[in-house]
Amino acid sequence: MTHAPLRFGLIGTGRIGQVHAANIAANSDTTLSWVADPFVDGATAVADSFGGRVTADAGELFAADDVDAVLIASPTPTHVDLIERAVDRGIPVLCEKPIDLDIARVEALRPKVAAAGVPVALGFNRRFDPAFAEVRARVAAGEIGALEQLTIISRDPAAPPADYVAVSGGIFRDMTIHDFDMARFFLPDIVEVSAMGSTTFDEGARRHGDYDTAVVTLRAASGAIVTIINSRHSAVGYDQRLEAFGPLGTLQVANRSTSLVSLSTAERVEATAPYEDFFLQRYAEAYAAELRAFVALVRDGASESPTFDDGRAALLLADAAQRSATERVAVAVGLH
Amino acid sequence: MTHAPLRFGLIGTGRIGQVHAANIAANSDTTLSWVADPFVDGATAVADSFGGRVTADAGELFAADDVDAVLIASPTPTHVDLIERAVDRGIPVLCEKPIDLDIARVEALRPKVAAAGVPVALGFNRRFDPAFAEVRARVAAGEIGALEQLTIISRDPAAPPADYVAVSGGIFRDMTIHDFDMARFFLPDIVEVSAMGSTTFDEGARRHGDYDTAVVTLRAASGAIVTIINSRHSAVGYDQRLEAFGPLGTLQVANRSTSLVSLSTAERVEATAPYEDFFLQRYAEAYAAELRAFVALVRDGASESPTFDDGRAALLLADAAQRSATERVAVAVGLH
Amino acid sequence: MTHAPLRFGLIGTGRIGQVHAANIAANSDTTLSWVADPFVDGATAVADSFGGRVTADAGELFAADDVDAVLIASPTPTHVDLIERAVDRGIPVLCEKPIDLDIARVEALRPKVAAAGVPVALGFNRRFDPAFAEVRARVAAGEIGALEQLTIISRDPAAPPADYVAVSGGIFRDMTIHDFDMARFFLPDIVEVSAMGSTTFDEGARRHGDYDTAVVTLRAASGAIVTIINSRHSAVGYDQRLEAFGPLGTLQVANRSTSLVSLSTAERVEATAPYEDFFLQRYAEAYAAELRAFVALVRDGASESPTFDDGRAALLLADAAQRSATERVAVAVGLH
Amino acid sequence: MTHAPLRFGLIGTGRIGQVHAANIAANSDTTLSWVADPFVDGATAVADSFGGRVTADAGELFAADDVDAVLIASPTPTHVDLIERAVDRGIPVLCEKPIDLDIARVEALRPKVAAAGVPVALGFNRRFDPAFAEVRARVAAGEIGALEQLTIISRDPAAPPADYVAVSGGIFRDMTIHDFDMARFFLPDIVEVSAMGSTTFDEGARRHGDYDTAVVTLRAASGAIVTIINSRHSAVGYDQRLEAFGPLGTLQVANRSTSLVSLSTAERVEATAPYEDFFLQRYAEAYAAELRAFVALVRDGASESPTFDDGRAALLLADAAQRSATERVAVAVGLH
Repeated sequence: MTHAPLRFGLIGTGRIGQVHAANIAANSDTTLSWVADPFVDGATAVADSFGGRVTADAGELFAADDVDAVLIASPTPTHVDLIERAVDRGIPVLCEKPIDLDIARVEALRPKVAAAGVPVALGFNRRFDPAFAEVRARVAAGEIGALEQLTIISRDPAAPPADYVAVSGGIFRDMTIHDFDMARFFLPDIVEVSAMGSTTFDEGARRHGDYDTAVVTLRAASGAIVTIINSRHSAVGYDQRLEAFGPLGTLQVANRSTSLVSLSTAERVEATAPYEDFFLQRYAEAYAAELRAFVALVRDGASESPTFDDGRAALLLADAAQRSATERVAVAVGLH
Repeated sequence: MTHAPLRFGLIGTGRIGQVHAANIAANSDTTLSWVADPFVDGATAVADSFGGRVTADAGELFAADDVDAVLIASPTPTHVDLIERAVDRGIPVLCEKPIDLDIARVEALRPKVAAAGVPVALGFNRRFDPAFAEVRARVAAGEIGALEQLTIISRDPAAPPADYVAVSGGIFRDMTIHDFDMARFFLPDIVEVSAMGSTTFDEGARRHGDYDTAVVTLRAASGAIVTIINSRHSAVGYDQRLEAFGPLGTLQVANRSTSLVSLSTAERVEATAPYEDFFLQRYAEAYAAELRAFVALVRDGASESPTFDDGRAALLLADAAQRSATERVAVAVGLH
Repeated sequence: MTHAPLRFGLIGTGRIGQVHAANIAANSDTTLSWVADPFVDGATAVADSFGGRVTADAGELFAADDVDAVLIASPTPTHVDLIERAVDRGIPVLCEKPIDLDIARVEALRPKVAAAGVPVALGFNRRFDPAFAEVRARVAAGEIGALEQLTIISRDPAAPPADYVAVSGGIFRDMTIHDFDMARFFLPDIVEVSAMGSTTFDEGARRHGDYDTAVVTLRAASGAIVTIINSRHSAVGYDQRLEAFGPLGTLQVANRSTSLVSLSTAERVEATAPYEDFFLQRYAEAYAAELRAFVALVRDGASESPTFDDGRAALLLADAAQRSATERVAVAVGLH
Repeated sequence: MTHAPLRFGLIGTGRIGQVHAANIAANSDTTLSWVADPFVDGATAVADSFGGRVTADAGELFAADDVDAVLIASPTPTHVDLIERAVDRGIPVLCEKPIDLDIARVEALRPKVAAAGVPVALGFNRRFDPAFAEVRARVAAGEIGALEQLTIISRDPAAPPADYVAVSGGIFRDMTIHDFDMARFFLPDIVEVSAMGSTTFDEGARRHGDYDTAVVTLRAASGAIVTIINSRHSAVGYDQRLEAFGPLGTLQVANRSTSLVSLSTAERVEATAPYEDFFLQRYAEAYAAELRAFVALVRDGASESPTFDDGRAALLLADAAQRSATERVAVAVGLH
């Protein structure tokens, strides 16, 4: 059976909103029908390139009769309200992470989302990266035996502006949140969090009481231990590695080089080009796959997309990490 | 200055014609206005996906007034005639390699092409591969000093059907032709050819007096030596490597893996996925870049595209290699 | 100036004692004059291969007049007493790690060692591994800027026997002790320890209340964070990696393969042989270099050898890790 | 059964003679009883370090009654005479390559060597390199199927002095000789040789009519093709690679790095240290294994050691390559 394309209302047209707009336009199963942003010029630019009607007011989008799904890519503080409006109208949602920086608002929304018959998916794009997904599938297939250790190295290319740091919710809620979800992609049931943060180079982080460097260890119910190593900068490019370790061996995800060329000279051999710049390059396929999974979720109830509860769990882990780093204790968590 | 898109007439809708059709449709500077193939179903399928009017008769395409350029992707024996018709009508041409299997036909056409004011470019796509182009640029920039040795390993994934072998013109004209052009991408002035061929596994090659395995050495006017290593099969995937060697070091192009994941176990460590299957995957960017270069050639006289004379030179080298392999002598060549 | 070879009394002829005996015999600056072990057959076998007089009683060795230095490779509980006897007699000591499992005994001995005019070096062999030493030197030279993160992956090939686990002092004092010293090789002033342990596969560890899997994070006074990832088993061979991360880049130590050969097939490419088995192979050069450094310490007061206080610091960190893992708190430490 | 050590008379104490002397001294199955060199100071220095009586006259060595085997490491022109004297006296010989630069002298000696009941082994050390030996064994075990292509890249770090070039016999007899033997290690029955030489950088080679750059292709009786790529210099260190290619995949030997450390920065990632300097480093294990194999040959008739006929075959191939490069024809050879 063929379907008419799923008509998206996109809310938010910043960097990540533009990525989604392009993917919606490129996917033959989806089309962009509305683009909402209070910054109308941004919405207009996106609509010019990828289609859709423009509005400054998301309410107009929710009132329209040609919106089959909403993609929320607006600032974090707007997410809870927008999810609620979509759920109230019975419109499926794909919302960028995090749901909110305040777990209380998430918990307050949770029963309504659970009761709604409408899918609410979270934009944890890395689950859809072919390499991470491959490792998870191969671990599940038993190639390395029962997972004992998972090591995630995740370093952004450069620290964000101090203004952004001020409202980011801190490194754990803003950056590590992806790694918490990646940990749960392999080991959903995390029971304990321990974190150490440090500020080694970023004046903005220092000013706002945030960290630029962090290591988090998580204990899974199975006894497996996850280690997350973060930095807000990385000279070599976006540093995104993962190692799954089990009794039969390891599966590793390497960084992706931007070139197949290596140079060898009298000083140094096998030198290759730096890794890809940042998430827009590194996770380009992941964003497209995330959209495909969401379409399958809306149409057929497919279960690959991370859920509202996955978004809540990642925030609970971030909160626990923040507390652990501040109070210097390990923090028990219950994600159920 | 903005331009109207260049309107292409595509002749031939086999595997490679389809690649070009998709790239013409995807490039905002180009559009597909005609699709010609005596196998009309093929032409229709291409036009359905990528646009353009359909004809079984390339003559209709040449007679149309909405063809700014012709892309020839039809069987080799038709190339000379089609190039001639395009040149006669003053239409720029991008023609798949080789020009012809018979150097006499190429030489006969050559004066007309030279005299025409119209660009005729040859589809040596590998020049546009980012990795090979990067190595050439870095050699030109002096990173390894004056080029002394160039080593090209080029192995197809699987031998073609015996029927194809029968009309292919032999391994040197059919397969090594790309490597001859790659050699000339770095060292245009080749003066001597020595070749050794062998038939080690392919019954089709044996039956038709062809080789499935070959090594060719070329001497450049500068004294540099090029080595080309070919096989008609490769279990590990399409094997496309290159090494440029000079007094200051080497620049190497590695094969491209299909995954960032590696597995380590008690038996074997750092094992990764096989290389990409074949040219459609490995050279996808190259085909798109080839098209962009051709547009720049037509519009601004840009000089990156390989020329008719490059096509002739590759064929002269292939003929010399064939003679060398058969007569067991080194063959002097003059490509001017 | 040439010297007579330094005459060693070796105490303990187990696996590690045999390594030292062989190195003493192979080094033209050292010679083996006494070999002591209550298990006389072991001592005899060592003396047969590498020279020296044999005794069951270390007292005889201390009483001899041809012992310029003592190498202590006997069981851990004997170390404190043997160091004390050597210091009392004014004989330089190279003692295997750890000094003792009980920090109280170490603290009790400390003033005497500090007051003695005799060098007491600890056998933290990994400091002498060419790769780790190279990274430290390059970090010190500023190649990656100020050290922000240090990641140590250290996995033994196979869990020790349950009997050994019972008396080992636990994974932190027995195994991680090397990694604590490696951390201090780069960042001597550690101020905080956080550890998470788990028992995922080893019945012996479970029975004795020990861990087989552990992650430790250390905070240095500079703000740098060290992560240590341990497992008591590793299918791929002895897993000994390190990554130093700074604002200008990373320096990494890879595992050492046992072969230069790689295999590529249709299933998997670039597969190489497993890593080296265990420390005797991986750190063979390190043990020889450790001995050379000790000779230079005895003769010229060279300062490369880890000291008694380094041994104490590693044990303090191990104790803190044990407490952190048990009580689930971060533990502040003062190593001065 | 234990044996008394095999007593060696070493003739020649240059760079390679010293390597053999050290290995004879280090091997518990061998001992150095005589050291002969007209340059007596050299012989004395070797004997001081590794034992043996010194003579300027090899005749004295042959007359002695405590020489069980002769190791010939003197200049090439002396080899034939020395082999003959050893064979006449019934003393087993391990002779450095090449036997001679003049095939006529080799052929003249051949019947006597064949008739003698005494082993004459040739010092083709690379056969004993663990990596090359591993690849050969794995090819023989069928891991990649029937060998179709063998590619040998062999580049010395720096061109020899012009004086040496003058008497070297040319690149094929002096340098490629090792690669010819390596080719025959995998494919003993070579039937055709084609070579191309060039002089691109070395004034000494130019002056003496020699090449500094060469590519040789060999056809085996099986149809397999061998490619040998040589240069007299290599900025990246001694470049010694090999690739065996068959229907099921490839087995590759990589260069050996001098360090496990890699550096990644904003400019370049995964850069490692240059490769080992030259054969003394790269083939250290090979020389020791070569000696062990020779001992096994003398004692038990073991067959791993390359023979006089292997030495002759390599020279025949070198002669054929020289002729091919000069006359620009492929040269058929019969090695039986």
